[in-house]
Amino acid sequence: MGKVVAEVSISLDGYVAGPSPTLEEPLGKGGELLHQWILRLKTFRELHGMEGGEVDSDDEVMAESVRAQGAVVMGRRMFSGGEGPWEDDPNAAGWWGDEPPFHKPVFVVTHHDREPLVLGETTFTFVTDGVTAAVEQARAAAPAELDVLIAGGADTIDHALAAGVVDELQLHVAPVLLGGGTRLFAGLGAERPRLELASVRESPYASHLRYRIA
Amino acid sequence: MGKVVAEVSISLDGYVAGPSPTLEEPLGKGGELLHQWILRLKTFRELHGMEGGEVDSDDEVMAESVRAQGAVVMGRRMFSGGEGPWEDDPNAAGWWGDEPPFHKPVFVVTHHDREPLVLGETTFTFVTDGVTAAVEQARAAAPAELDVLIAGGADTIDHALAAGVVDELQLHVAPVLLGGGTRLFAGLGAERPRLELASVRESPYASHLRYRIA
Repeated sequence: MGKVVAEVSISLDGYVAGPSPTLEEPLGKGGELLHQWILRLKTFRELHGMEGGEVDSDDEVMAESVRAQGAVVMGRRMFSGGEGPWEDDPNAAGWWGDEPPFHKPVFVVTHHDREPLVLGETTFTFVTDGVTAAVEQARAAAPAELDVLIAGGADTIDHALAAGVVDELQLHVAPVLLGGGTRLFAGLGAERPRLELASVRESPYASHLRYRIA
Repeated sequence: MGKVVAEVSISLDGYVAGPSPTLEEPLGKGGELLHQWILRLKTFRELHGMEGGEVDSDDEVMAESVRAQGAVVMGRRMFSGGEGPWEDDPNAAGWWGDEPPFHKPVFVVTHHDREPLVLGETTFTFVTDGVTAAVEQARAAAPAELDVLIAGGADTIDHALAAGVVDELQLHVAPVLLGGGTRLFAGLGAERPRLELASVRESPYASHLRYRIA
């Protein structure tokens, strides 16, 4: 049986996005530095229909995650950057164009009802009854032996951690201090899970800390 | 020539102490969880005049640091938990009793003048002109080939990073979410150093991330 794994890139000072995100700069000021480790990788480029790319310990980390994932859960903001009714969202088709890099079912947690959206090999299903319901739907859509990825953003991961539906948390810690932005763990309140270190891998670009939720 | 190394234990959510520190609970609520990795070690126990203790990868990390350190810099709060004039500080002799575990010169950054304090093999010198001056005095006191340790707290490390006097930063990341307390890096403002990963080591008790300041 697959696991539910929350996975996100984070700065050493705890931010998963920089300050002042916009449609042009969805990760906020400096936020692109969080993803330097991944953009250059063969696995990343393949998923985006590009050739080439580096094959190293970071690529191994990414390739293992991607192979293990049978379905994805994400928040509305990670999907489009927007909020409120979909007809007012200028990015309602998401960030990824006609061929999103997921190639598996994606469940988007939102307050606003919407029919599923099919783009290339990816179907986005919109879930209005919370992250736990989205994880259940993702679990049902994924092959039993594969994982459900909770991809972000911070709020969605925090809600999932607080709801107790996460089995493992993988943080890709970039060697950068953003100084501001969106913090992971800020929405946990008193519902803080107990963690056990599962594995550590590293490259000059990121330290990959993986924890089991106890 | 030795380096200037800032070193501190930190929670996965970025706190170097829990909320509401007191004289009885100097590390705040839950703060003792940050140091689970170290209290059980042979090197730690030796420094505190105790026998026994575990010898493992954490002990190796600690022993290497201790061997490399020729002098220590810390803030007033780390020394005593107090502030203001020394005569009003109920903990003016520090936390460690008659035999502090340093066994090398310690320089305490404070706003309040005071004669040096000798306890066992440790001399505490009180420096009133800031962390850069304290690092200079520590550098002069340490054997040339040994490092100067900046031991904390968060403010002192932040000031030292902002002042550009730190060569390396070692974070001992405990697998714990404190949910509140004293954050490292909160005092940096726009003076954020560039980091390069130098090494990663881990045990179930802590991930030791070491960065060079670029």
